[in-house]
Amino acid sequence: MANGRSIRFYYDLISQPCRALYIFLEQNKIHYQKCPIALRKWEHTTPEYLQNVNRFGKVPAIVDGKNFKLAESIAILRYLAREFTVPDHWYPRDSRRRARVDEYLEWQHSNTRLHCAGYVRYVWRGPLRGETMDPRVAKRLKAEMVGCLDFIETNVLQRDVHFIAGDEISIADLEAACEIEQPKLAGYDARVGRPKLTAWMQRVKETTQPDYDEAHKVLNKFAPTAT
Amino acid sequence: MANGRSIRFYYDLISQPCRALYIFLEQNKIHYQKCPIALRKWEHTTPEYLQNVNRFGKVPAIVDGKNFKLAESIAILRYLAREFTVPDHWYPRDSRRRARVDEYLEWQHSNTRLHCAGYVRYVWRGPLRGETMDPRVAKRLKAEMVGCLDFIETNVLQRDVHFIAGDEISIADLEAACEIEQPKLAGYDARVGRPKLTAWMQRVKETTQPDYDEAHKVLNKFAPTAT
Repeated sequence: MANGRSIRFYYDLISQPCRALYIFLEQNKIHYQKCPIALRKWEHTTPEYLQNVNRFGKVPAIVDGKNFKLAESIAILRYLAREFTVPDHWYPRDSRRRARVDEYLEWQHSNTRLHCAGYVRYVWRGPLRGETMDPRVAKRLKAEMVGCLDFIETNVLQRDVHFIAGDEISIADLEAACEIEQPKLAGYDARVGRPKLTAWMQRVKETTQPDYDEAHKVLNKFAPTAT
Repeated sequence: MANGRSIRFYYDLISQPCRALYIFLEQNKIHYQKCPIALRKWEHTTPEYLQNVNRFGKVPAIVDGKNFKLAESIAILRYLAREFTVPDHWYPRDSRRRARVDEYLEWQHSNTRLHCAGYVRYVWRGPLRGETMDPRVAKRLKAEMVGCLDFIETNVLQRDVHFIAGDEISIADLEAACEIEQPKLAGYDARVGRPKLTAWMQRVKETTQPDYDEAHKVLNKFAPTAT
């Protein structure tokens, strides 16, 4: 453990990858400084943020020490797993187990993330910003999301393992679960009708409590079907 | 070097990530078996392919030894960089340099890849499959791609370094360059009007010849503005 080391964490818990990173930081008792960034106030697009924190203008981001700026949640998770002493299961040193974690995380971008976030953005965030919603577009985006979640149920979650990349929780599960919670904002609960996904989400939650619930407080507050 | 080790490589060089992986394999003289998969014949969707090679139904994929199946080009690149003796610059062991490679590769999915591939898919591949093209959609997709490429020119490629993540070539450059070549299929040359991007693409090409040109032979054959 690098005690006293200063990691500044820039985040908004309404963002899925911010929640994944928050849970990881808390679970591993990594000392960090909270730097909340309100997306609704566009604080991630100010010139100061772009220059001093993340030139990509997104959350999450970290600044390690005086000036090592790093963006992209998955790159940050890998960096923290190298820089701090964390249990091996999060990002296994075993080459094939690590490859399995990486495989899901790469696949996720154009699948779980694209479709779940895409639907929420169009159906929930768009109208909040005064954008009009075309029901045919909403229907198409929902169908793409449903297809992706069904694929996760039948192909990604293997019958004989407890988590995405094996019998122990990894950073792939954190990223995936946080993405799959997001459609709740648009009134869609991914668990309904998907028993394997439901059991897996429950395992991720139980393994990472109380941090999982803490991370999802804001989302559950805004979600019409909040449980 | 694990001489005699059997890696089967499933690919179609019309696909960007397949080209990146092909260049890496050739540059590092990794012994592998070529298993071409014709996307235009939907060979990536046959039950045999899904079961024996890649359940995600995509290229590239590898099978290492008897049965270690791995999908997703970036996960494969990281795996090969661990499993074989390759020069450090491809995926540096130094934690911060590695983080910089990872940061670009994570960012790329929802930016370089989404926008360049999205435009090509709609404007080039769609009509080939008999789909009608809405000029307004094509215009919007092109604007998104142009915005992304401009951002790469001004923000991703730093003035004082030669490659994306430092002064030496890494897997980030391979993935990026292969994505940015793709819009040629739709008659769009990303180099035009972008001097930093042009110089960087040239460096990537020169550093990886003759494999770069070999990888892009098929693309250049189909590209209306082939040079």
